[in-house]
Amino acid sequence: MPKRAAGTTPIELQVDRQAPEALDVQIAGQLRHMIMRGTLGSGARLPSTRALAKELAVARNVVIAACAQLVAEGYLESRVGSGTRVAIARPEGMLRVTPSRGRSSALIAASLPAARQRPVRKAQLSFYAGAVAEFAPYVSLRNDRVLPFKVATPSLDDFPVAIWQKLWRRVNGGLTVKGLDYSSPAGLLALRRAIAAHVRLSRGVHCDPGQVVVFNSAQQSIDAVARSLVRPGDPVWLEDPCYRGALVAFSAAQAKIVPVPVDSDGIDVGAGIRRASEARLAYVTPSHQYPLAVTLSLARRIQLLDWARRRNAYVLEDDYDCEFRFHERPIAALRSLDDQQVIYLGTFSKSLFPGVRLAYLVLPQELVDTVLAVRHWSDGHAPAANQEVLARFLEEGHFERHLRRMLVLYRERHAALLAAAAKHWQGLLQVVPGSGGMHTIGWLSAAANDRQVAIAAAAVDIDVLPISAFRLSRRLPPGLTLGFAPFRAREINAAATRLAQVLIAVK
Amino acid sequence: MPKRAAGTTPIELQVDRQAPEALDVQIAGQLRHMIMRGTLGSGARLPSTRALAKELAVARNVVIAACAQLVAEGYLESRVGSGTRVAIARPEGMLRVTPSRGRSSALIAASLPAARQRPVRKAQLSFYAGAVAEFAPYVSLRNDRVLPFKVATPSLDDFPVAIWQKLWRRVNGGLTVKGLDYSSPAGLLALRRAIAAHVRLSRGVHCDPGQVVVFNSAQQSIDAVARSLVRPGDPVWLEDPCYRGALVAFSAAQAKIVPVPVDSDGIDVGAGIRRASEARLAYVTPSHQYPLAVTLSLARRIQLLDWARRRNAYVLEDDYDCEFRFHERPIAALRSLDDQQVIYLGTFSKSLFPGVRLAYLVLPQELVDTVLAVRHWSDGHAPAANQEVLARFLEEGHFERHLRRMLVLYRERHAALLAAAAKHWQGLLQVVPGSGGMHTIGWLSAAANDRQVAIAAAAVDIDVLPISAFRLSRRLPPGLTLGFAPFRAREINAAATRLAQVLIAVK
Repeated sequence: MPKRAAGTTPIELQVDRQAPEALDVQIAGQLRHMIMRGTLGSGARLPSTRALAKELAVARNVVIAACAQLVAEGYLESRVGSGTRVAIARPEGMLRVTPSRGRSSALIAASLPAARQRPVRKAQLSFYAGAVAEFAPYVSLRNDRVLPFKVATPSLDDFPVAIWQKLWRRVNGGLTVKGLDYSSPAGLLALRRAIAAHVRLSRGVHCDPGQVVVFNSAQQSIDAVARSLVRPGDPVWLEDPCYRGALVAFSAAQAKIVPVPVDSDGIDVGAGIRRASEARLAYVTPSHQYPLAVTLSLARRIQLLDWARRRNAYVLEDDYDCEFRFHERPIAALRSLDDQQVIYLGTFSKSLFPGVRLAYLVLPQELVDTVLAVRHWSDGHAPAANQEVLARFLEEGHFERHLRRMLVLYRERHAALLAAAAKHWQGLLQVVPGSGGMHTIGWLSAAANDRQVAIAAAAVDIDVLPISAFRLSRRLPPGLTLGFAPFRAREINAAATRLAQVLIAVK
Repeated sequence: MPKRAAGTTPIELQVDRQAPEALDVQIAGQLRHMIMRGTLGSGARLPSTRALAKELAVARNVVIAACAQLVAEGYLESRVGSGTRVAIARPEGMLRVTPSRGRSSALIAASLPAARQRPVRKAQLSFYAGAVAEFAPYVSLRNDRVLPFKVATPSLDDFPVAIWQKLWRRVNGGLTVKGLDYSSPAGLLALRRAIAAHVRLSRGVHCDPGQVVVFNSAQQSIDAVARSLVRPGDPVWLEDPCYRGALVAFSAAQAKIVPVPVDSDGIDVGAGIRRASEARLAYVTPSHQYPLAVTLSLARRIQLLDWARRRNAYVLEDDYDCEFRFHERPIAALRSLDDQQVIYLGTFSKSLFPGVRLAYLVLPQELVDTVLAVRHWSDGHAPAANQEVLARFLEEGHFERHLRRMLVLYRERHAALLAAAAKHWQGLLQVVPGSGGMHTIGWLSAAANDRQVAIAAAAVDIDVLPISAFRLSRRLPPGLTLGFAPFRAREINAAATRLAQVLIAVK
């Protein structure tokens, strides 16, 4: 305990010359904590700055700076002739402070009560938070790296990083003064124009750039639709089995979920009409159903649009990996047949790379203002730099070239998967030949438990999702998703051998 | 009308060799539309591919490709011996198609009914969409460019673009295979570590990187808090006058908004307790109240935290421009005094540039899982590239250096504003000297209508916001916001002259 002047309060301070905080900040922080803890009570007189400086072996200016800061903040008051005193009393209930990890404040930290780790009670949360908290962030059991047969991941090794970076340099990273500032919640006009041109050419969708709204992700787009249109109890058709992101968004928006079975022609529209013809919205993946990988037939498409029009319902068309069709040209989008009931959703996560964080909606004109307001007030806008680079990437034809290259690659890898299946999985897993996209599925024998298979597979570095994880209400035959896009033929073959062993073992 | 084979249906097709669509896509598109419109009925037989090719003067392969596509899609069927026929009938209600702007399909477009421009009825929207739609996206009357005295915009001319780009090149734009893929909804660990170090040094906030969640924007962070915690009818304290982004987020989350007056010491906590001591949450801007630019006093801080602790309420501390204090060191954050009730919100929109689209919450431990689930399912994660570059920018000290430079600059500009006010606005606008941040306010004479002044000012390229635009329930003296951060002294002076003329004219 250091010597002190009569009438002053003893205080123990420590400074750490290795710590990143300046010495005056360290001293002020410790004094502040002592006052808040009540160690230094109201009116307590501090030792002189000279005495404190000497005790801590720091320059007197350091102590003066610390005290000046606390005077400015109202913790201390300094009067001529009476030195520096504590100005305030701690409140009745002692405030909790964060136990510090810094060495200099070890003394303080040691004497503080540990933060109670209260679990948050669900009753204290919103309906939304309670609902989303029930869903694990990932279905996959192995998300530490991209293992075969992970779905929804493009071949990142083959992304033309050099071209992207060349464009980034050319637009100066979008870091013009304009690009640094806030921009439109709808997205950069150049990007919306390029998207409108792209969907016209590749998907038969004619739209005005004013109907395009750029989002950070497909999930944010789905959420915006759910937040815009769904009132509590509104029936919403979901495909059964269904993409979980849509299930979560619509469940959490308090929709009444109407599971509509998917068969080999896609969603069974007749079943949907029988179950809930008054539905507000239908969420569908017509090009390549997720997870079952089937394509919605034309007859069903017409039936769906006819229903939507008669009931003034919306159809949210999630066209997540439409770009890759192995045989004929991609089937035209639902939106190309109806621009008043269909909300078209496109994403660059599959066609480019997930880290780009750009997706878009093509909206019916009547919804544009509403969705823009939702976009603005729930977030704002996507970073300008990525938008600017992507606009150039589209305008200059790099996107179409990349898609063509990936189509060739994915077609080869799909063939490699079928060849591996024929070689290793006969009688174990019946792989459905896909018509496009980045994944297909394999059916297990009827008695199998697909979840157990997925768990056993994860243990040997195989990432397959059980079809049962996507079910809403119907019992589905056991099956596994099989992504092929990011895997070379050799990797597919090696993984097929490992999965075969798992399949034999659980049989 | 071209010659045709007996039994075939006459069809009028046109191709445009200048259009970006391939010829077969044009032909398929026109046929598809005719089928959907009913011009080509079920069973109608098409002219031979040879005849069509000749008529259109295209290679026969082009017509074959078009027909094959439509067979694949189910519109046509092709049988040996009977040629190609329409396979489906249009549904009862005729589907609407988008009138095309392309020349080649002018014929089709001309005969289609124009899309009805139905206004969307509010009853068809969610509560959320109805609520946000009532707020104009911007308060400002002039958003076309950055005009004096625009608030909330840093000096973008002074952002060290070259350093940012050097870092971008060094991390390869974050475009490693890992950076291209999905990443954590919490944000990159490197960035969360750098943020934790920054808030410790500059704001006295000790937290674990695991308590930091990265968002795209402050608005998205506020929305996530509202979506996580607010149940319909939950009372939420807002400062009166208040930042509109918070008002919209909490109103749209169906909070019961409790306006709590702001005086020269900041939010009047006692008034809040009298009005709704049972509130779920208080949204505050303690460092620099928005819009009134006052700092929350220490006594009020303690009172606020004491209340929050006793009622187990949360305090959302929006520290939007805390980095710039002109006199003493920035006052320590509320979060530095309590890590269980205080949710700390920081943004890089003010300290760096709005286009970077990165903000963060420092959460109480008990809320981390909930907010992460909300973050994941309502969007996903921020783009990896910006996060990676920002992490380096922080780690390597560029951020602190930039803040120091901007502090000097903003202090000078603030002084220039006060000097201009003394020179031009005597008796017209009483400018309150600020203690920091990027804006202050000026009070008009009691009888003035601040909205009318703002409108008149906008006409002479002055961007001021009326204080009345921020009011919740109380009548406020008329006043104007005065941003100074992005404006040189000369600009401030010239604008002060123009605003003086407006003030004299409306007097």
